[in-house]
Amino acid sequence: MNSSLRTDLAIENAEMFHEQEELQGICIREEDGRRAGIRITRVTVENEVGARKIGKAVGDYITLEIPELDMEDVSYHQSICDEVVEQLTELVPDIRNKKVLVAGIGNRKMAPDALGPLVVEHLLITRHLVQEYGKNTEITRGMGCVSALAPGVMAQTGIETREILLGAIHETHPDVLIVIDALAARNVRRLNKTIQITNTGIAPGAGVGNRRFGIDRDSMGIPVIALGIPTVIDAAAIVDDTVGNLLAVMDSEANSLGQCIGKMIKNLDDSERYQLVRELMAPEMVNMFVTPKNMDEIVLQMSYTLSEALNQLCHSIA
Amino acid sequence: MNSSLRTDLAIENAEMFHEQEELQGICIREEDGRRAGIRITRVTVENEVGARKIGKAVGDYITLEIPELDMEDVSYHQSICDEVVEQLTELVPDIRNKKVLVAGIGNRKMAPDALGPLVVEHLLITRHLVQEYGKNTEITRGMGCVSALAPGVMAQTGIETREILLGAIHETHPDVLIVIDALAARNVRRLNKTIQITNTGIAPGAGVGNRRFGIDRDSMGIPVIALGIPTVIDAAAIVDDTVGNLLAVMDSEANSLGQCIGKMIKNLDDSERYQLVRELMAPEMVNMFVTPKNMDEIVLQMSYTLSEALNQLCHSIA
Amino acid sequence: MNSSLRTDLAIENAEMFHEQEELQGICIREEDGRRAGIRITRVTVENEVGARKIGKAVGDYITLEIPELDMEDVSYHQSICDEVVEQLTELVPDIRNKKVLVAGIGNRKMAPDALGPLVVEHLLITRHLVQEYGKNTEITRGMGCVSALAPGVMAQTGIETREILLGAIHETHPDVLIVIDALAARNVRRLNKTIQITNTGIAPGAGVGNRRFGIDRDSMGIPVIALGIPTVIDAAAIVDDTVGNLLAVMDSEANSLGQCIGKMIKNLDDSERYQLVRELMAPEMVNMFVTPKNMDEIVLQMSYTLSEALNQLCHSIA
Amino acid sequence: MNSSLRTDLAIENAEMFHEQEELQGICIREEDGRRAGIRITRVTVENEVGARKIGKAVGDYITLEIPELDMEDVSYHQSICDEVVEQLTELVPDIRNKKVLVAGIGNRKMAPDALGPLVVEHLLITRHLVQEYGKNTEITRGMGCVSALAPGVMAQTGIETREILLGAIHETHPDVLIVIDALAARNVRRLNKTIQITNTGIAPGAGVGNRRFGIDRDSMGIPVIALGIPTVIDAAAIVDDTVGNLLAVMDSEANSLGQCIGKMIKNLDDSERYQLVRELMAPEMVNMFVTPKNMDEIVLQMSYTLSEALNQLCHSIA
Repeated sequence: MNSSLRTDLAIENAEMFHEQEELQGICIREEDGRRAGIRITRVTVENEVGARKIGKAVGDYITLEIPELDMEDVSYHQSICDEVVEQLTELVPDIRNKKVLVAGIGNRKMAPDALGPLVVEHLLITRHLVQEYGKNTEITRGMGCVSALAPGVMAQTGIETREILLGAIHETHPDVLIVIDALAARNVRRLNKTIQITNTGIAPGAGVGNRRFGIDRDSMGIPVIALGIPTVIDAAAIVDDTVGNLLAVMDSEANSLGQCIGKMIKNLDDSERYQLVRELMAPEMVNMFVTPKNMDEIVLQMSYTLSEALNQLCHSIA
Repeated sequence: MNSSLRTDLAIENAEMFHEQEELQGICIREEDGRRAGIRITRVTVENEVGARKIGKAVGDYITLEIPELDMEDVSYHQSICDEVVEQLTELVPDIRNKKVLVAGIGNRKMAPDALGPLVVEHLLITRHLVQEYGKNTEITRGMGCVSALAPGVMAQTGIETREILLGAIHETHPDVLIVIDALAARNVRRLNKTIQITNTGIAPGAGVGNRRFGIDRDSMGIPVIALGIPTVIDAAAIVDDTVGNLLAVMDSEANSLGQCIGKMIKNLDDSERYQLVRELMAPEMVNMFVTPKNMDEIVLQMSYTLSEALNQLCHSIA
Repeated sequence: MNSSLRTDLAIENAEMFHEQEELQGICIREEDGRRAGIRITRVTVENEVGARKIGKAVGDYITLEIPELDMEDVSYHQSICDEVVEQLTELVPDIRNKKVLVAGIGNRKMAPDALGPLVVEHLLITRHLVQEYGKNTEITRGMGCVSALAPGVMAQTGIETREILLGAIHETHPDVLIVIDALAARNVRRLNKTIQITNTGIAPGAGVGNRRFGIDRDSMGIPVIALGIPTVIDAAAIVDDTVGNLLAVMDSEANSLGQCIGKMIKNLDDSERYQLVRELMAPEMVNMFVTPKNMDEIVLQMSYTLSEALNQLCHSIA
Repeated sequence: MNSSLRTDLAIENAEMFHEQEELQGICIREEDGRRAGIRITRVTVENEVGARKIGKAVGDYITLEIPELDMEDVSYHQSICDEVVEQLTELVPDIRNKKVLVAGIGNRKMAPDALGPLVVEHLLITRHLVQEYGKNTEITRGMGCVSALAPGVMAQTGIETREILLGAIHETHPDVLIVIDALAARNVRRLNKTIQITNTGIAPGAGVGNRRFGIDRDSMGIPVIALGIPTVIDAAAIVDDTVGNLLAVMDSEANSLGQCIGKMIKNLDDSERYQLVRELMAPEMVNMFVTPKNMDEIVLQMSYTLSEALNQLCHSIA
C-alpha cells in the first residue's frame, strides 16, 4: 500500500485493489439504498492482514455517497440526516442515555478545514444543564447529555488535538467520543459529496496535514466514532487521474502508437505512475489542493446538515 | 461588601471604602509612573480580613490606567507593551525558561467578550516546536515554550472552563497559566482604558456572566496570572453613578430642598441606593450592558496590544 | 421638540406628548392585533404642523411591538414575517410586479449596526436573472425583480449612502427602494423587540450616528420604504428614565421630602431634566450605548426574520 | 488565441506565443529589477493586431513577480509597497492631487476572491473629510482624496459591478478609478506571487467567473487602473501543464516509444492538447480551482500589502 496515494476514504483505498486481486481480510458490501439519492458502501477491515493491505485500521467504514450533499436545501437535507442518524445509532446503541463528547477537528479559519469546528458551533449542548438540573426535569426533558470542543490545530495551540481531548475526557468522563473532521479524497466525484462514518476513530497520518497519532479507542479509552466529509483533493491526484485516463485512451487505440504506450503502461504500476506525475509537476504544487471556489459556502451548508443529524441523534427534542 | 456592586477591578472595590474608613488588611499604593500616560495602582489584599472586606482573594492587583488603550496605534502601543511585560516579569520571574499555557477566556463571537480568544489568536505558539526540536536549536532559537487555548464558554461546550484547563494542564504540564479575560467595570472612565494584572487568577463569581468557580493556584495546581481589560459596564452601574451625582448636587444646595434631600441621603448607604436604582429600572435592563458601539474594533485593537506584550514577554525574537 | 431625546421611533416621539396636550396634526391609532404577540400602532403625521411638533416627516409610521422578536425560532418567526409582509403590501401594492432595490444601511462589522447588511446577505436576488431570461421563464418562474446593496458607512467609503444609492438608482431604474436600518430607541422595552415600517424613508439626522441628509422620495425620486429595528439605546436615556422614576416615586410620598422634591419637578420639564442628567453623567458616556452582551447573536437572528419577510413579499417561490 | 486557456495575466498570454513566432504588435520587456526579489516584466499591447493575437486590450501590463509576496512580513513588505507605488505613480502622475475612487471587486466571503474587498477595508478613506474641511487643513493635512467601494458580486446584488461603479462615478466625479481584483493564473509558480498592474482596466470576460463587460476608460469615462494578484488556477491548467511535461519527457527519449509519442505531439497544438485534457478530466472538475489550503490567511496578508501601497501612494501621512 503506497502512502503517497493520499485519501482518507477507506472506499478509495479499497477501490485501488478492487480489480486487481482478491482483497484478503477486507469485506466490501454495497447496502440497499434505503433512501433515494444515497448510495451506501460498507468496507470492513476484518484483521491486521487487511489493515496492512489497505492502510486502514481494523473496523467498519460506512461511506454515504450523496450527489446533493453540497447543494443548498432549506430543510437541511432531512433524508441525509435520517441516514446518518440510523448509521450512528447502529454504531452507538442507546446513545441518548450516554454522555457524548463531540470534537470538531480542524482550523476554523480555513474554509476546507472548518467542517468540524462549524458542526460544533451548531450543536445543542446540554451537559451543563444535565449536570445542574438532572435528566428529564422540566428544563432538560428530551435532552441527551452532549458536550463539545473545537480543539483547534497544533500551530495555533502548541498542543496536540489528542492531548486536549484526553484532558477533557479525563475531567468529564464521557461514554463516547464523536470526532468530526474534514477529509482528503482521491476522486473529484467524491469531493463534498461523501460522508464517511467509522468506528475506528482517526488513524495516525490520516489525511491532509498533521493530525499526529491516533484518536481512537486505544488512545482515548472510550469508543471513538469519526464522521468526515472530503473537502479537498491533493492537486497531484487530479493530474494522476487525468494521465491515467490519457494512457488508457492511448492503449485502446489499435495502432503502433497505442502499442508502444501499452508497453510503457505495463511497466508502471499505480504508485510508480503517481511518482512520475509528482516529478513532472511544479514543486509549488506540493501544498496545493483542488477545491471549489465557493468552498466557504459549501462547508457551512454541510456543517448544518451534520449538526442537525447529531442533534437528532442525541436528543429527542431538537 | 455588597456583591451587587459588580466590578472585576480590585481598585474599584477598594475605592468604595476608601473615603469612609481605614481598610484593614488592604494596602493601596500608587506607583511612580515610569511611563507617560500610564497610571499604576497596586492593591494588595494582605489577609482574609481584607479579602472579606473587599470581596477579592488574597494577592496583588496591579491596575494600569491608560487613556490611550482603546485608540488605534500603528506600533501596537509599544510603551503599554513594555509596562505589561515589566509587571508580568515581576510576577513570573524567568518566564522565558518556563512552560507557559495561555488561556483566552470568553465568547469569541460576542465583541465585548472576545478579548481572550482574540489575544490567543495572535500569539506566537511554540510548544510543539520546542517538543519536536528542543530549545535553542536553529529553528527554536529565541523561543520560549508557549501553548494556548481558547476554551469557549459553557453554553457552547457544556464543559466548565476550569475543567478544560485542568485537563490540558494534566496532559501538558505547564509551569504557569496566564488567563486573559474581558472584565466588567463599575466606572465608565475605566472602560477599555484599564489593564488589571493579578496573581490571584479568576475568582468565583467574578465579573459578568458565568465563569463558575475559581481558576487559581489552588484549583489548577500551578501559579495562575490573570490579565484583564474591562469591556462592559452593568447598565445599572451607570444609572447609580448619575443618581449619586444628582443627590450630591442637591445636598450641596443650601436651601430647604437641599436639606430634606440631605436627610434622605443619610438614610441610604451605597448598596441601598444601588438596590433602589435597580428597582426603579425597567426589568429588561438586567442583562443590558453599556459599551461603545464600535466595541468590535476596539477589542480587536486591544487584543493586538496584549498579545504583542505576551510575545515579547515569552520569547526573545517576536 | 427637543432633538436631544434621541429616538428613531415615531411612536416614542409621540408618547412624549401624549399625556400633556392634544397632538395637532398627529394621529395615533392602535390597530387590532390580527396576530397573537404582535401589538400594532400606527402614527400618522398628517401635515407640517404635526411634523414640526413630533420631529418626524409627514407620512405613516407603523410600529410592531413583538416581545419574541429577539428570541430564537426555528421557523424564522413565521407570524412576524406574515405581519411584515401584510404591512409592506399595503404600502407598496403590486410589489411583485415592481423592480425593487433593497439597501442595507450600516456597518457590517459592528454588531448593533449590522442589521441592514445582514438582511441583504440573506435576500433572494433576482434582477440579473430577470434581465437575462425575462420574467416567468422556466428559470425565473415565481421570481420578482430584486436587487440589493449594502453601501457601507461613510468612514469606510468616503461616499454618502445617499450618493451611492442615487447612483445605483440612476443606473438600474428600480420602482421602489426599501431601506433596512438599525435604529436607536429611547425605551429599553423596545430594544430588539420592535419593527418600525414607514413610507417616509430615513430622515435627516435620524438615529445614532451620521446618516447625513435624507433618503426619501424627494431625494431618491422613487418611493422609499424604511424598515428598522432599534438595536441600541443612548446610555443617557437609560439614566434619564430611572431618574424620572425616582422623582416620580418621591413625589408620591406624602411627606415633607416628597413635597420639596415635588416643587423641584414642577420646575423641570422633560428636556431640562435630560440636560441635567447629561451634565451629571461622566463625559465618557457620550458615545456609549446600552445593548445586550449577545447583540451579535440577536442581530443575526432578527436579520433572518426580516430577509425572510422580504423574500416572501417580493417572490412567490421563496 | 484560444480563450479556453484561462489566464488573466498578460505575461502568460504572451508566453504562449513567445517561442513560436514573432509577436507582432506586442512588446515584451524585462525591466531592471531595482529591488531585490522583484522581477519586472512589461508587456505592451501596441495595437489591435497585438490585442487580437494576445487576447488582451491595447495598453501596458506590468507584472511584478515576487516569490515572497505570499509570506508573512511584519513590515507589510515595504519594498513591494515601494515598487507598487512607483509603478502606479508612473501610470497616474500627480495622483495625490486627484480624486481617487478604489473599487474592490469580488466576493468578500470566498477566500480566493476576497482580495479586492479586503484591500478596501484597510484603506485610509478621506473624501468625506476633504469634502467637509477642504484640503490641507489641520484635520486633512497630508491627505489625498480617496473614496472606496466593494460593490459585491452580481449573485448577491443583482446589479453588475460596472453599473454600481458607473453610478458612483456619476455622483462623486472621481478623476481616476483603481480597481483591485483577484485573478486566475495559468502557471502555479505565479499563484499568490505576482502582481499585475495595468492601465487597461478589466476586460470583458476576464478571469474566473462573471465580471461581465469591461470596466475601462471607455465604459467609465475616466482612466481605470487595475491591480490584481492571481489567487486561483483552473484545475485543468494544472493537469495540462503536467501532461505537457510528460509528453516533452517522452519526446526526448531516444527510443521507439519516444518516437511515436513525438509524432503524436506534432499533431496537437497547445489548445488541442488542452481540449483533450478537459475531455479526459472528470466533469466535476469544471468549477474546481487549485489553491493553497491556507488561502484565507494568504489573501488577508496580501491585502495588507496592497492597501499599504495605496495608502502610501495617495496620502503623504499614512
